[in-house]
Amino acid sequence: MTKTTTQGSADFIPVTDRIACFDNDGTLWSEQPMYFQFIFALDRIKELAPQHPEWKDQEPFSFILKGDMKSALAGGEKALMQLVAATQTGMSSEEFEAETKRWIATAKHQKFDRPYTEMIFQPMLELLKYLRANEYKTFIVSGGEEGFMCAWTEKTYGIPCEQVIGTVMRSTYEVVNDTPRIVRQAELDLMNDGKGKPVGIYNQIGKRPVFTAGNSDGDYEMLQWTTTASGYPRFGMIVHHTDSVREWAYDRTSPIGHLERGLDDASKYNWLIVDMNDDWKEVFANEN
Amino acid sequence: MTKTTTQGSADFIPVTDRIACFDNDGTLWSEQPMYFQFIFALDRIKELAPQHPEWKDQEPFSFILKGDMKSALAGGEKALMQLVAATQTGMSSEEFEAETKRWIATAKHQKFDRPYTEMIFQPMLELLKYLRANEYKTFIVSGGEEGFMCAWTEKTYGIPCEQVIGTVMRSTYEVVNDTPRIVRQAELDLMNDGKGKPVGIYNQIGKRPVFTAGNSDGDYEMLQWTTTASGYPRFGMIVHHTDSVREWAYDRTSPIGHLERGLDDASKYNWLIVDMNDDWKEVFANEN
Repeated sequence: MTKTTTQGSADFIPVTDRIACFDNDGTLWSEQPMYFQFIFALDRIKELAPQHPEWKDQEPFSFILKGDMKSALAGGEKALMQLVAATQTGMSSEEFEAETKRWIATAKHQKFDRPYTEMIFQPMLELLKYLRANEYKTFIVSGGEEGFMCAWTEKTYGIPCEQVIGTVMRSTYEVVNDTPRIVRQAELDLMNDGKGKPVGIYNQIGKRPVFTAGNSDGDYEMLQWTTTASGYPRFGMIVHHTDSVREWAYDRTSPIGHLERGLDDASKYNWLIVDMNDDWKEVFANEN
Repeated sequence: MTKTTTQGSADFIPVTDRIACFDNDGTLWSEQPMYFQFIFALDRIKELAPQHPEWKDQEPFSFILKGDMKSALAGGEKALMQLVAATQTGMSSEEFEAETKRWIATAKHQKFDRPYTEMIFQPMLELLKYLRANEYKTFIVSGGEEGFMCAWTEKTYGIPCEQVIGTVMRSTYEVVNDTPRIVRQAELDLMNDGKGKPVGIYNQIGKRPVFTAGNSDGDYEMLQWTTTASGYPRFGMIVHHTDSVREWAYDRTSPIGHLERGLDDASKYNWLIVDMNDDWKEVFANEN
């Protein structure tokens, strides 16, 4: 680290180029048994069901209302996106922000009985702080949806919304009775995953990161784009979920957080594999 | 100002909500006789013509090569976007950045014989600095294209790329011989003008600004969204181009920087109209 912040060092990086990008789901907080934004969608379906009697006979809503999660999730990411669209759009930006803040402040993870913002990883929090103390600017680059993340990342990670790059739902600007609002539409504008991540970084930051942390093959291209650049020293790391007791253990066969190409090519690109079980003294923040 | 930065004041705004948004073309720098990014496109057409013999018989390129600007521009914004696509895409992000930096460092505005980065407005630079000194975070929200602006806004205005919200061209991530690059495509992803501006702000900043400066009807919705929000004091201003000697005078009848609804509704929304001729002691930066 010191060599990148010492003027005159061959590896010195000017402050404006000290860009560090972090995936969120599985890298900064947990993502099992499914991405937390989807759990938010499921919780809202139960809440909103009385206003939607038609959901009783309509898949995947009907499965969820009967508690049959296995069938509900059989439709894969498409079915999940349908749930997000049904529950997290069709309202103003400010209504959605308030709903998200309410959920994140009150909901708890079933397995650990902890708020989701306490399912964030203590060693990663320390890494964020360490980088910022060395004048690195920290960004989130996530497949999670921008509006969802922006409601809580500043408070939870110290990362303001303009340093959050996420999947973007289409929004429209509407004025009724001289009162404008942004309305979230049930349509994707940009999917920020896989090859979309380096593109998202280019569009929002305009330069290659010198530091990238991820945990799944959805981060592969972001890691590759970071660590194959010339000029400065570059660093890539993968959080490997290996602790089935304190968190979860999964990689090559998991549909959520699938990690295969990343493990295969880590040595080729010199990516550091962090073994959660062996390397992390603590897992979650505020655990003790 | 002081009342928004004094703890305990009824108008106090916490630092995280001190968001100030500035249009670029016509607000931070000039935009006549056409947006400077289009002049860049014209300059590149002349440069690239030897490699494109077909342009001699192809409108609007043929007009430009003959120096017939009036016919070239008769096609309106569509023809201009075609020129941007022909000259500023189909290359990697890093090639485009280098080209833009080269142009902005060497090209000069015909009327004033000054580099374009010295066609920025001294009073606006002072305003940016004043806001930042009071812990306001300053953003650019422009119809200009993201990659073009990001090549020079940090150095010129002190505004880094992640605080620049612009029109987004589609880009793709491509890997050839293990070397990845981002390639700019001749297709628009998001047009950041008019109603697109508040949407762009929502997607990137996640909250309403408390301060907005613009100069044309393309900024109307951004101003409206800013100044109709409740909670904090809000401020909107319009730079009115009234100085035909030191800069240009134009508003209701100009196709570039068209300003009509903004003038009509300024008093209704309490927007400050800044008269360039009467109110500005200096116009351009580094003029003396």
